[in-house]
Amino acid sequence: MKNNSAHRSILVVGSVALDDIDGPFGMHRDLLGGSASFIARAASYFTRDVSVVAVVGDDFPAHHVDEMTELGIDTTGIERKSGETFHWVGKYAPDLATRETLDTRLGVFATFQPLLSPRQRKADLVFLGNIHPTLQRDVVEQTERPLLVALDTMNFWIGGHRVELVKTLARVNTLLLNDEEARQLAEEHNLCKAAARILEMGPTSVVIKRGDAGALLFYPGGVFGVPALPLEDVRDPTGAGDSFAGGFMGYLAYAGNFEPQTVRTAMIVGSVMASFAVEQFSVDGLRGLDAGKIQSRFDRFAELTHFERVRL
Amino acid sequence: MKNNSAHRSILVVGSVALDDIDGPFGMHRDLLGGSASFIARAASYFTRDVSVVAVVGDDFPAHHVDEMTELGIDTTGIERKSGETFHWVGKYAPDLATRETLDTRLGVFATFQPLLSPRQRKADLVFLGNIHPTLQRDVVEQTERPLLVALDTMNFWIGGHRVELVKTLARVNTLLLNDEEARQLAEEHNLCKAAARILEMGPTSVVIKRGDAGALLFYPGGVFGVPALPLEDVRDPTGAGDSFAGGFMGYLAYAGNFEPQTVRTAMIVGSVMASFAVEQFSVDGLRGLDAGKIQSRFDRFAELTHFERVRL
Repeated sequence: MKNNSAHRSILVVGSVALDDIDGPFGMHRDLLGGSASFIARAASYFTRDVSVVAVVGDDFPAHHVDEMTELGIDTTGIERKSGETFHWVGKYAPDLATRETLDTRLGVFATFQPLLSPRQRKADLVFLGNIHPTLQRDVVEQTERPLLVALDTMNFWIGGHRVELVKTLARVNTLLLNDEEARQLAEEHNLCKAAARILEMGPTSVVIKRGDAGALLFYPGGVFGVPALPLEDVRDPTGAGDSFAGGFMGYLAYAGNFEPQTVRTAMIVGSVMASFAVEQFSVDGLRGLDAGKIQSRFDRFAELTHFERVRL
Repeated sequence: MKNNSAHRSILVVGSVALDDIDGPFGMHRDLLGGSASFIARAASYFTRDVSVVAVVGDDFPAHHVDEMTELGIDTTGIERKSGETFHWVGKYAPDLATRETLDTRLGVFATFQPLLSPRQRKADLVFLGNIHPTLQRDVVEQTERPLLVALDTMNFWIGGHRVELVKTLARVNTLLLNDEEARQLAEEHNLCKAAARILEMGPTSVVIKRGDAGALLFYPGGVFGVPALPLEDVRDPTGAGDSFAGGFMGYLAYAGNFEPQTVRTAMIVGSVMASFAVEQFSVDGLRGLDAGKIQSRFDRFAELTHFERVRL
């Protein structure tokens, strides 16, 4: 994997957070969370050059950053500021199908102003995690002609900052979001039509993440769909979408091109990393993976979806 | 297709009904509906020998039966009784994602007692539509060693007639149901575990239909998943599951074996027929198809799901 990589670099701008997660497996406090934590870790299996821009408070355990550094992730862009780390408190329903947010304390994340180092400005692939669309655009403007810019967003920005978001989307190659967000952004329930409208806003591909219904990729002239791998043991869906994004970006960096066939495979690699993530709390499901384990699960997706192309 | 078929015969026992359907495209009254109407029509593209056992009232338009006969379907088992035809009245939400039942008038269907002709008793494949599980078992007992018995059921029977249903499942090869029904039957939210429990009840395969999230097939030692084809124009989801079942059974009859690879392909053919059905009201989406149109949509599923099996 990363030893054979084309060695494209990935810059991840997002949150590094602490989560309290309640649900059928009890309350788990102060778990490492945040989009960048999942994305960078998932991507780090596929390319040697992943760097993070984020902010944490002075309450943030140093060992989390040390561990990322040991994985080869450039953590020099994780700024430590006086104050509390972004803290999310959520509770999952007994079946893990739905969750409610009990508390969100933005802490130092409220004044996050991503500043790229000279090296980060030259990143080949840029992932803009779920932050204010104006900050996302500011990051794009700091970069020097990246090969691919991908962006995640959420209902809060779509509903309350649409004009800014649409301006930012004009600068983006790939948008990743869930089905309800796609419908809200396009103001259209039908996902085909919603994707077509989003493609008119700027991105050349749209990835619609659908949880246990899998994921869809829309691009001009094509659509790709992959079911989620049915899993016996799901403990914590937090970070599934971000782990998908990390595997997706990591594979694109590894492959070094963005042809439709490559992006399709990246969708599978994203699904693979998401399937690992949900089996454990926090980033634990992404720990200790290797080429063999990742290949084995990739092959399970191949087996899951295989059918003979018959002539009827 | 059916000209090359192994010519296995299919018996379909179920409802032939009239539907009133309200929703974003207005009210449509007295549409041909009922599980057997969709299943037999979808299956008829794949094998010459489809017969139906059902009951209609004296208000049922004769031309619906004539049209089925013209398609080569044996309709001599559609009994006409004095009284009203089974009539369902439903209303879809503007996004077609949910529906409510406004009225159900069972009419002559309330006393439906399926009686197989000597020829029907020798059917190779038997599909037991969504009726009382005791009646379903009674049909099985009238048959003479069919190669495959498939069964559909619903929450009403799972909740209220579980003991009878479980007794019937012991006689069944393939169970088709939706995800909520699978969870209810297995008393387990996780679909992997739910499917494993259902396989312990008798069936050797379970097909879980998930609407626009596609479908899953579980069998001992394997699982297959197919996304739904994203469609631009969906008018009426009524009959989608039954059209799936018809394509599924039709392909198995055509192929003449029930190996996992064949059943996987049958899942795609089922998805193909469901995708046609939802584009029009009633059975209109299943009208006027031919081998070319069906092959073309099958190929769209192949394109939808194709990715390269890479070594990472």
